[in-house]
Amino acid sequence: MPCLYSDRVSDAFSGVVRSSTALFTDKYELTMLEAALADGSGERPCVFEVFARRLPVGRRYGIVAGTGRLIDALASFRFADAELAIAAEFLDATTVDWLRNYRFSGDIDGYREGDFYFPGSPILSVHGTFAECVLLETLALSIFNHDSAIASAAARMVGAADGRTLIEMGSRRTHEEAAVAAARAAYLAGFDSTSNLEAARRYGIPAAGTAAHAFTLLHTTTAGRDEASAFRSQIDSLGVGTTLLVDTYDITQGVATAVEVAGPELGGVRIDSGDLGVLARQVRRQLDDLGATRTKIVMSGDLDEYGIAGLRAEPVDAYGVGTSVVTGSGAPTAGMVFKLVEVDGIPVEKRSAAKESRGGAKRAVRYARRTGTLVEEVVYPATHPEAPAGEGSVLHELLVPLVRGGEPVAGLPTLDEGRELLARGMVSLPWEGLTLSAGDPAVPTRFVTTEV
Amino acid sequence: MPCLYSDRVSDAFSGVVRSSTALFTDKYELTMLEAALADGSGERPCVFEVFARRLPVGRRYGIVAGTGRLIDALASFRFADAELAIAAEFLDATTVDWLRNYRFSGDIDGYREGDFYFPGSPILSVHGTFAECVLLETLALSIFNHDSAIASAAARMVGAADGRTLIEMGSRRTHEEAAVAAARAAYLAGFDSTSNLEAARRYGIPAAGTAAHAFTLLHTTTAGRDEASAFRSQIDSLGVGTTLLVDTYDITQGVATAVEVAGPELGGVRIDSGDLGVLARQVRRQLDDLGATRTKIVMSGDLDEYGIAGLRAEPVDAYGVGTSVVTGSGAPTAGMVFKLVEVDGIPVEKRSAAKESRGGAKRAVRYARRTGTLVEEVVYPATHPEAPAGEGSVLHELLVPLVRGGEPVAGLPTLDEGRELLARGMVSLPWEGLTLSAGDPAVPTRFVTTEV
Repeated sequence: MPCLYSDRVSDAFSGVVRSSTALFTDKYELTMLEAALADGSGERPCVFEVFARRLPVGRRYGIVAGTGRLIDALASFRFADAELAIAAEFLDATTVDWLRNYRFSGDIDGYREGDFYFPGSPILSVHGTFAECVLLETLALSIFNHDSAIASAAARMVGAADGRTLIEMGSRRTHEEAAVAAARAAYLAGFDSTSNLEAARRYGIPAAGTAAHAFTLLHTTTAGRDEASAFRSQIDSLGVGTTLLVDTYDITQGVATAVEVAGPELGGVRIDSGDLGVLARQVRRQLDDLGATRTKIVMSGDLDEYGIAGLRAEPVDAYGVGTSVVTGSGAPTAGMVFKLVEVDGIPVEKRSAAKESRGGAKRAVRYARRTGTLVEEVVYPATHPEAPAGEGSVLHELLVPLVRGGEPVAGLPTLDEGRELLARGMVSLPWEGLTLSAGDPAVPTRFVTTEV
Repeated sequence: MPCLYSDRVSDAFSGVVRSSTALFTDKYELTMLEAALADGSGERPCVFEVFARRLPVGRRYGIVAGTGRLIDALASFRFADAELAIAAEFLDATTVDWLRNYRFSGDIDGYREGDFYFPGSPILSVHGTFAECVLLETLALSIFNHDSAIASAAARMVGAADGRTLIEMGSRRTHEEAAVAAARAAYLAGFDSTSNLEAARRYGIPAAGTAAHAFTLLHTTTAGRDEASAFRSQIDSLGVGTTLLVDTYDITQGVATAVEVAGPELGGVRIDSGDLGVLARQVRRQLDDLGATRTKIVMSGDLDEYGIAGLRAEPVDAYGVGTSVVTGSGAPTAGMVFKLVEVDGIPVEKRSAAKESRGGAKRAVRYARRTGTLVEEVVYPATHPEAPAGEGSVLHELLVPLVRGGEPVAGLPTLDEGRELLARGMVSLPWEGLTLSAGDPAVPTRFVTTEV
């Protein structure tokens, strides 16, 4: 699988020139580094954890996404001349030299990509010196906050689609690089394909697409509109299996023209506007009457998980989803934080109103019934020799090794494996956790803080 | 000014290796290209326009942002081997060859970066063959939809801050590359600085930062907390002009310790949690009592434009804004579309319910009173020999040349010039347009559609 930032990809294969990720960093991380190197505390062994204090309002679960991108980005978190030049503008020579030789050499454990998270789940646990860990704060959070927000929204859409095809087509509604990561997160969550070509190239995600209204409009002449000519051109080029966009002018006429031009073997028609439910029934009837009984109906146009659920009883074969998935459907960021929880084996935590964190490195397990249904998540001190007893008979370890001595461990899960993990996970959620309506987290979390 | 994607920047200067932007593109653009090349319509002269059908709910104005980034990205919109490999998976040889030689050779006009836009404002007008223009849809929209959403939210915060310092510190809440673009858009809108080092490097935006709670926690020993030691370390490294984060434990104690360690010349204190208004007054009093009368108070912690406005009467010197600015404060995308409006001189438009666009290439002007206050925007057919008469005596041309024959025109406005344009623009809005409360667009737009 080609990756933008990974050293593990040959130039010949990826074709994309990698650049440093080291400046996706807030200035204060480098000034803290300088002070910590100067007073000696920079070398203290530390544990930082990434977690979300809460889920977005009403959400029942979150989906961990971004782990693979973080591992890739870590490989090119290096300070070369360009990065050092800006650092030298405000740092002393000792710190700049330290940065020149910087490579993260610690250990990282984390929840598997595609797994659930709930409030307080320690989805990433970063172990190393303060100096080497503190630099990763912004990069790690940018990746997890973005990718998990998208995957969490996308998973709800996948649930609402109930097995029908979902095409991610939101690239144009978000930053051009965020679009590539969004396509990846949506695919992780179970979307079938993306419109984004860079996501197809970089991650091997299936690419899909139909046509724009512009293509139909392009075939206008001084004699007037010519939808048939546009359809004929598309079919000549892409074959009758293609999907024709039929709502540029009149939909009923558009469907009639489409089948007239393509014949009853036409692959699909797309409708991008109007009352999608009414139109789906009407167009299905029309297609069937024309003998195009196997022609699929693709619906798009401001669909979100509620819109998808609302079309569940209608003869829709595929949904094209744009804005809502790439913007996290109302929750564009996952609200994750990167907190120092342990210094030299001493648990530490901030003590201010409403922003408490739990000190000490943690581990986490989830208990399930024999049927597979999840019962509870238990977060406990890493110093415990074993997981606390819990409700349920089956135990899942949630934190797995990702990085050892600064290097990715062998056999990290692929994107497709994360996708399968998530698909299996959805089946393990209690029923009420799958509803779109607002409510408590689908699985309660118990925090064990006393020492054994 | 260094730019990631621009050919105009020497390697030695930027230090960032440029990659192609050609795959920030939806698959259907390339399949439409193939069909259009095959039937000959790809060579028809076309005009595409970028506009927003509406503003986000309640917003009074939008801010055009992204123009500079689009011009940069256009320079590296090239299909090299890596990009052609993926294209060859689904395109015929003729189209792949065409892509190999692709360079946009048309003309682009647009609103100035930092200018206002309202519903229907044609902020970008792209002229060229269908084939060369259609490929730019996703890239142009990704950039404008993201950057304009951020700048539009940021401008409201700048208004609410009423001259006080604004620091953008939201990198960790959004995709790592989106963060860089967000810092740029916030700076365009009047923010003073960013925490993001890549934005500082790439665009020359002033970087700022204080310290994290982790730095105070790091100084914990087996003997317990040691806030004083953390503060001393920061001051030794950064000088007494630095800003100390005082809310890790008890704020009152934190302020006392800060002034004890730094003396009354301490640059600033930052408070990141709690009831910011109450705390500002309390901390100001405490600082003044300690003789630290010039020590500034920096407030952060989930601030948005309303939170900033709510602190207007409090002794706050600077605001640190994160999540809300990088996510567009409730409107993470600007809702802009890229529409074919003219083919071979023939106006074209889609005719479906609720998604009408106005055919034909357009121009736009804004009228103002002699006092400078804007009265109306007038959008009219480009075929008109001159702008229609309007209310107000002063005429502003809104579309300016950006690209000619595929090359950026000389003397394009810099980011700082856009920032000044926006600052001047805010003074020209009618008063009611500056309020944060929901309402109609600050300036009405009149669409002239009849031919002269």
